[in-house]
Amino acid sequence: MEIALMQAKKSCPFIHVASASSLRRLMGKNNLLLNKAKSCPIMGQALSARSISTSAPVNVANSYGQGIIPPVSHNVKNHFDYESFYQEELEKKHKDKSYRYFNNINRLAQKFPRAHTARVTDEVTVWCANDYLGMGRNPILIDNMKRTLDRYGSGAGGTRNIAGNADLHLRLESELADLHHTEGALVFSSCYVANDATLSTLASKLPGCVIFSDSLNHASMIQGMRHSNAPKKIFRHNDVAHLEQLLQSVDPSVPKIIAFESVYSMCGSIGPIRDIVKLAKRYGAITFLDEVHAVGMYGPRGAGVAEHLDYDLNASNPHRGNGAVLDQIDIITGTLGKAYGVVGGYIAGSAYLVDMIRSYAPGFIFTTSLPPAVVSGAMESVKYLKGSRSERTLQQVNTRTVKSRLSEIGIPVIPNPSHIVPVLMGDAAAAKLASDELLSEHNVYVQSINYPTVPVGEERLRITPTPGHNGPMIEELVQSLDKIWNRYDFKRVQDWSAQGGCAGVGVSEAIEPTPMWSDKQLGFDKSDEKEQAFFTNNE
Amino acid sequence: MEIALMQAKKSCPFIHVASASSLRRLMGKNNLLLNKAKSCPIMGQALSARSISTSAPVNVANSYGQGIIPPVSHNVKNHFDYESFYQEELEKKHKDKSYRYFNNINRLAQKFPRAHTARVTDEVTVWCANDYLGMGRNPILIDNMKRTLDRYGSGAGGTRNIAGNADLHLRLESELADLHHTEGALVFSSCYVANDATLSTLASKLPGCVIFSDSLNHASMIQGMRHSNAPKKIFRHNDVAHLEQLLQSVDPSVPKIIAFESVYSMCGSIGPIRDIVKLAKRYGAITFLDEVHAVGMYGPRGAGVAEHLDYDLNASNPHRGNGAVLDQIDIITGTLGKAYGVVGGYIAGSAYLVDMIRSYAPGFIFTTSLPPAVVSGAMESVKYLKGSRSERTLQQVNTRTVKSRLSEIGIPVIPNPSHIVPVLMGDAAAAKLASDELLSEHNVYVQSINYPTVPVGEERLRITPTPGHNGPMIEELVQSLDKIWNRYDFKRVQDWSAQGGCAGVGVSEAIEPTPMWSDKQLGFDKSDEKEQAFFTNNE
Repeated sequence: MEIALMQAKKSCPFIHVASASSLRRLMGKNNLLLNKAKSCPIMGQALSARSISTSAPVNVANSYGQGIIPPVSHNVKNHFDYESFYQEELEKKHKDKSYRYFNNINRLAQKFPRAHTARVTDEVTVWCANDYLGMGRNPILIDNMKRTLDRYGSGAGGTRNIAGNADLHLRLESELADLHHTEGALVFSSCYVANDATLSTLASKLPGCVIFSDSLNHASMIQGMRHSNAPKKIFRHNDVAHLEQLLQSVDPSVPKIIAFESVYSMCGSIGPIRDIVKLAKRYGAITFLDEVHAVGMYGPRGAGVAEHLDYDLNASNPHRGNGAVLDQIDIITGTLGKAYGVVGGYIAGSAYLVDMIRSYAPGFIFTTSLPPAVVSGAMESVKYLKGSRSERTLQQVNTRTVKSRLSEIGIPVIPNPSHIVPVLMGDAAAAKLASDELLSEHNVYVQSINYPTVPVGEERLRITPTPGHNGPMIEELVQSLDKIWNRYDFKRVQDWSAQGGCAGVGVSEAIEPTPMWSDKQLGFDKSDEKEQAFFTNNE
Repeated sequence: MEIALMQAKKSCPFIHVASASSLRRLMGKNNLLLNKAKSCPIMGQALSARSISTSAPVNVANSYGQGIIPPVSHNVKNHFDYESFYQEELEKKHKDKSYRYFNNINRLAQKFPRAHTARVTDEVTVWCANDYLGMGRNPILIDNMKRTLDRYGSGAGGTRNIAGNADLHLRLESELADLHHTEGALVFSSCYVANDATLSTLASKLPGCVIFSDSLNHASMIQGMRHSNAPKKIFRHNDVAHLEQLLQSVDPSVPKIIAFESVYSMCGSIGPIRDIVKLAKRYGAITFLDEVHAVGMYGPRGAGVAEHLDYDLNASNPHRGNGAVLDQIDIITGTLGKAYGVVGGYIAGSAYLVDMIRSYAPGFIFTTSLPPAVVSGAMESVKYLKGSRSERTLQQVNTRTVKSRLSEIGIPVIPNPSHIVPVLMGDAAAAKLASDELLSEHNVYVQSINYPTVPVGEERLRITPTPGHNGPMIEELVQSLDKIWNRYDFKRVQDWSAQGGCAGVGVSEAIEPTPMWSDKQLGFDKSDEKEQAFFTNNE
């Protein structure tokens, strides 16, 4: 279906001004638009030319809709029919509304946080990227990467062991170890790979290891644990008492890993790091803390929530051995692709731990290392955010503003102490409709988040403010959501409340979480300074 | 130990001119050099200053030698001692000589194939990178990537589903689908991830699937198969009769995947693609072909060995449906990080297959997509090499020259029809010694390849010529190897022959493999043209 739309957009002078959501509605279940198109003098020819050119390259790499190209048959009756099987698996996704249509979003460095869509003249404001601080368009990074491209070329040219280990890789790892107050760090293709490779290697090597995993852990950690084949005990999200109960059930001498996150990206909750570290010490476990959505964003130097917990201490003495909880965490993992604005992932930990993963993890050993320019840009970003706090504080100020404005009009934000603004929809089709309409009618891009990323019934729009979103953009977002909520009569806070609450929204007697960044840390000691900060943002 | 060396290199005016291999020898088992250093007026102070600064950040991120920093103890007697465990695991690597010391290699774009080492003034010729064609320094790529950095910034800012799907990603996938004559293609962080994610997703979803795997398959495929939990039958390397025997043992209606490679990177052998495709059709299996070391390098448009097999047909009619064997392969995987000179990996296959992997593979779904500049550079590279054959033909000419020169002096090259020049050492310590001495005494960088990348007893130096290696560089390589072989009396072909041969070297009555690139394809129709081509290379 999508390929017909693409074809139509190219050929038809009328259709290319229509919005994607309207077109999808027009397509309907019976390909209404396609049937109409066949009788059109221009489109009819274009479509029939395509369907008969079987020997020409029919490229449908990007057509992910309901298929119109027949599967190839092996013509052997008793063989398995692979193409039909793939088709059936896709049909399941369509049926449960979890099939994903990728939006075409091209984020413009010179106009952050704006992006153009499939047509370069159609611009939208991006409200859901993980380039939380806009570092991806920071000239310090860009210029550095361009210089590195000139000097060291576009690729690493090998694995870390074979020709792909440059001084830049070593320096980035030193920078990251320093950031997290650890002895060592190790860079991977992505933090997905870092989590998967580290957990699977570690838990499969440690004799008899048992893993304790938060129920909301990221897919990469779940894969790593699964691949280790180690037994896993899942504790209820952020439930320290439940975790302790599970820890008590395992022999003290057995090696144990507690795997959890600092900021849970889809609901914005924050892990009880201090309590979990205490339990780990008590029960002889090691802690594996994913700070992917927190690095660059929390703490005086951007090392994440673990650093943030001892803000003043770490600000005045940012070194290992200062007595902060940061020193007590065994393994921290982070990304270079979100707040740091580039790509790649890493682990930080003791020298022996890092060296063991370096020496044994296939996901680290057998892959081309990151390009010099990527490594160099990421290093500049980490260094820069160690010194500059204004990006992350302004991000927090904007987050507070968005949450507060949405609260005023009853748009249901899942309460949390972090920089994530999850707006509860509670239905996959509704979330998709809202996202499509924001994009096509309001030039606002917020992706809908459906199962399996969140549970069925807790579908949401996930909004991520940045320091680049100014006052008018925030108003535009709020007004657009309000209009859509009115138009489709989507549930507001009081509606959720009336049915007993959902995902923390409309829950009676719920305590509003205290933001991780305190008023003092944001410089809001006096109320008039808050106005000042917001004004700065509006400039 | 390594950290002491680094410290010494910084502080000592004498030691920083010594070669790494001499220093390692001086260190010995009892830290001879370290003990000497303690009595030196300069080094002694430097070392003791470091050891007492416990509250300062002691960064050993990059010291991968025998540890000198004591592990942290939890002070609870019956708890598992993690740090000692890591240390023991590392000790195993030291004992069996498989512990890896990374060389510090910084490949210089303006001086390809030269690189500087840890000191920017120390330059070496790189003879083992996988940037086979020097595309990593091609101004077409570099300029394109710099423009993309300016326009779209340094990172994608999200997963493909959430803000990270740009037009560039879609266009690269179209380009790759066109390259391989497939309906679709899908880009991943790396081909390690592509292989792992695709095989694990596919083989776990196909009901009752059985995998047939070549015994020399890459670690990424092995991981993918393992993670699928599907039963696996391993056939002897390139042994079609053995594969058929195994296929016959499984019910015709059971889904089957035959996983293999085109160019096996460590020995340079080439998979019998045509025969395996025939067997797949006969037994109702699908083929999964890893062309990682072949894309950009073989075929009229650089699509790999499968394209090369019908060279003239694909050159004249480079489209799906032309009757070439390329059309019969179900899944092709490739990399953007070797001959294409950037980073990233991909699969190419039918629209349904690609869409199913896109919709179900966690390794694709839950990770930040590749940065726009990386995607754009890779696309330029694929496009460029579709049109230009001179890089890959000159690479093959240089490969022939290196193989022939080494053969003349009896240096044992493992015979193969591809662009890889594996020199057999047969011993881990010898391979490391040769590699270290090439680097420190001859300014030639060839990494030693030891277990687990190759079997114990088949350790080797893996040489990869490029179009950038000129005549004098080739002579320098050959003479350096000859000197080292003489100095340490390493085995030459006749020595291997005398003991019955090893890894194809010195095997009596062995037939020399016919190079994949024929004389005709290289333009060697007449013998004098060969001279001409070599002369061009020397310029």
